[in-house]
Amino acid sequence: MNSQRPKPQCVKGFRDEFGHDVISRREMLTTIATLFELHGFDALETPAIETLDALGKFLPDTDRPHEGVFAWRDDENYLALRYDMTAPLSRVAAQYRNDLPSPYRRYAIGPVWRNEKPKVGRFRQFYQCDADTVGSSLMAADAEMCLLTLKILSSVGMTKEDFVIRVNNRKVVESVLEKAGINRDDEGQYLTVMRAIDKLDRLGLGGVQQLLGKGRKDASGDYTEGAGLSESQIDVVMGFMSAKGRDAATTVKNLEDIVGTSPLGQVGVNELREIMEFVEASDQKSGACEIDPLIVRGLGYYTGPVFEAQLCAPVHDAKGREVELGSVAGGGRYDGLVRRFTGQDVPATGLSIGVDRLLTAMTMRQEAAKFVGPVIVTVMDKFRMADYQAMASELRDAGIRAEVYLGNAKNFGRQMKYADKRQARVAVIEGSQEKEAGTVQLKDLQMGKSIAATASHEDWKSQPSQVTVLRHDMVKEVQRILSGT
Amino acid sequence: MNSQRPKPQCVKGFRDEFGHDVISRREMLTTIATLFELHGFDALETPAIETLDALGKFLPDTDRPHEGVFAWRDDENYLALRYDMTAPLSRVAAQYRNDLPSPYRRYAIGPVWRNEKPKVGRFRQFYQCDADTVGSSLMAADAEMCLLTLKILSSVGMTKEDFVIRVNNRKVVESVLEKAGINRDDEGQYLTVMRAIDKLDRLGLGGVQQLLGKGRKDASGDYTEGAGLSESQIDVVMGFMSAKGRDAATTVKNLEDIVGTSPLGQVGVNELREIMEFVEASDQKSGACEIDPLIVRGLGYYTGPVFEAQLCAPVHDAKGREVELGSVAGGGRYDGLVRRFTGQDVPATGLSIGVDRLLTAMTMRQEAAKFVGPVIVTVMDKFRMADYQAMASELRDAGIRAEVYLGNAKNFGRQMKYADKRQARVAVIEGSQEKEAGTVQLKDLQMGKSIAATASHEDWKSQPSQVTVLRHDMVKEVQRILSGT
Repeated sequence: MNSQRPKPQCVKGFRDEFGHDVISRREMLTTIATLFELHGFDALETPAIETLDALGKFLPDTDRPHEGVFAWRDDENYLALRYDMTAPLSRVAAQYRNDLPSPYRRYAIGPVWRNEKPKVGRFRQFYQCDADTVGSSLMAADAEMCLLTLKILSSVGMTKEDFVIRVNNRKVVESVLEKAGINRDDEGQYLTVMRAIDKLDRLGLGGVQQLLGKGRKDASGDYTEGAGLSESQIDVVMGFMSAKGRDAATTVKNLEDIVGTSPLGQVGVNELREIMEFVEASDQKSGACEIDPLIVRGLGYYTGPVFEAQLCAPVHDAKGREVELGSVAGGGRYDGLVRRFTGQDVPATGLSIGVDRLLTAMTMRQEAAKFVGPVIVTVMDKFRMADYQAMASELRDAGIRAEVYLGNAKNFGRQMKYADKRQARVAVIEGSQEKEAGTVQLKDLQMGKSIAATASHEDWKSQPSQVTVLRHDMVKEVQRILSGT
Repeated sequence: MNSQRPKPQCVKGFRDEFGHDVISRREMLTTIATLFELHGFDALETPAIETLDALGKFLPDTDRPHEGVFAWRDDENYLALRYDMTAPLSRVAAQYRNDLPSPYRRYAIGPVWRNEKPKVGRFRQFYQCDADTVGSSLMAADAEMCLLTLKILSSVGMTKEDFVIRVNNRKVVESVLEKAGINRDDEGQYLTVMRAIDKLDRLGLGGVQQLLGKGRKDASGDYTEGAGLSESQIDVVMGFMSAKGRDAATTVKNLEDIVGTSPLGQVGVNELREIMEFVEASDQKSGACEIDPLIVRGLGYYTGPVFEAQLCAPVHDAKGREVELGSVAGGGRYDGLVRRFTGQDVPATGLSIGVDRLLTAMTMRQEAAKFVGPVIVTVMDKFRMADYQAMASELRDAGIRAEVYLGNAKNFGRQMKYADKRQARVAVIEGSQEKEAGTVQLKDLQMGKSIAATASHEDWKSQPSQVTVLRHDMVKEVQRILSGT
């Protein structure tokens, strides 16, 4: 082994999560999984590792090979960590195509990895939570994704005033680009234009105009190469970007005029109309869904309807600074992904919930939920550990989190300090006097917050926040303190 | 994009898991997490990726650098996927040592990765489920790990007759090796001897004897290099291996005789005695824990008590072949792991549950639990999708999994075949006649298994497994069928 000590450091762009943060996410994932199940999606868990070849390259802003993904050479292949849940799903849909039901409806929950430059609030590992229907070309399938997203956001604690779901169609965007004379086969230019449109929210019309033209330098001095369109091409694209009307019907009408006789554009507009009809027919108020020509989504594989859920109000961190969260959910139709493997068209559509962004938004809006640590059974006599363990056991049998203090027991103040760090509500104390009298002391740590950690057991006893109860009543009395009665 | 199609293949040694398998594991993980919480452990989630340096090399059978782990070169560092939960915990304990409570009690649940040669039933990604107490040198902490393992195995459905927890102490083993004149500093030989002892269950005394000496060729012809001990050295080790007596007290007595005046050995024997006292004092029957000198554990970092939970009866696969599962849980004390980072000794002990092995054992012993798919609302008129969606919505509001068929609706038989593949219990049918009459047909698919998938809607109607109910009573009637009344 190396004699030099390794640095105890989380790798840059990653993070360690403790206690309450882990539990909050777990609860949110459980809520979402339950809704996925309820809507008839079945669970799928694929490995974190795939061949680089199977994953393909659809990440935004990465035209260089291996950029954006964590990849390495194994024996015969390049292996990589998945960067989303859709690429592995396409692989599964192709691999098991003779055995899976069709349509195949599955959900997947787990971490994905992106080898991006670390940024504040942006992590290289984060959770995705996806549901997809593979093998259906019906707009009912796309509408279901929008409605399910709506339902999920409401179920995890968002109100309908908090967010809006914006729906668009890639076919409409493509027909406009066609009209502007932008060549679909020049994949680089094509995607640059798509992504410039996607950035209007962040960069404003001027910024997008620069990205459509020569390029743009951001505040940090980083330069982004533009799509290199001519003035007249830029005009067509910018005209499309202001097609949004006062309601869905008006927007559809505007788009109809813009796409004109383009067959692709007409199909796209009809798809949009059909989705909005389904959304409005559902029992949910349709106010939370709207058509927005600006939504194109960054990923390269979308082929039809796309949507994004965005928060209406800006989110602020503890210091009052505005946090740029982007969309908290999104999805769309990607009819070509399975064809990559099989050569056959397989229509597919899906949604993805940005669980970590949602958690960030909710933590920042609300008071952190009150977290209660375990009951700490203190150690007054190190030869009576078995007795203390028995107390912890009794508490657990009543469903109460409990543990015996396992550090150095000599210093009572240190035990209280430990209980405080654990956010314990109650400490149980049984010294020799209590043992003789058949009692225990219960210390209400919330009441006794003001007492110094260095206080002795005798000091603590004199506080009103400490009560003497019969050993026999310990569980009952702890329950009383925990319930706050 | 490459014009050649990628192969839709899960990478060798990995696996895709569907529906029920995913749910079973999730349920088991939830049960275990709840028990960890109850015992006062707090959740921790570290990233899957660490620096190779921080992870260190403690895997069995891999003395070559990078063998055993998935690692790759990033900008300045080698990065790697974690191979267990203990190495990242040590990094966290060192990194946050000034902020964490001491002792730090945490649990962690998630996948780990090992870059091993794929074998039948052995996967390169699997789940670990760990609880650890960092900062306690008390044997009460080790005893808690054994007792908690016992509790977990019972809670996930094992009975106490199914498994045994074998406890040993590395200090005892080390003192025996010292006595045999095996040099601790020759790390290669030292670990080879440890691992040879660990393999008695699998290889028998003869096999271990070969591994202690020159080496051993297995059935497949693979040759494993031995430790190269002399005859007399082998005798000392083999003598130790038969120290187990009819009960814990006898075994402790035998070990006391074997370690003699070795200070290290005496400490080890006393630790074993103390653990067994705690176990016997607990409210749980101590029959499931025993001292076994043969348990050493493969990992290189253990320094004191070690334990393993093993199944008593062999597990057989569907073809009746015996499946070698190894231990389903285990753990031990590793006082040196944090020192790697800080230079300071930090006593620590932990347990790890082999969730995937446990699931394998339980699946093979039991009938697969009855899995029920969603209710399928069939599509009899593609222009009435919104009505069918409303039905699915009503069913979901009653907590029933439900979905509208989203494939090509023209062929009714195909819809029934789909429902069958999804293991649906009920299909809902509303054609024009039913619509007019204000009714729906409910098809009990379990009753109707014998009907050919090619049957028409009319054919199905004549079956007793199909009932006509008022549209208004749909939810109530579906509930009735699902509850089997």
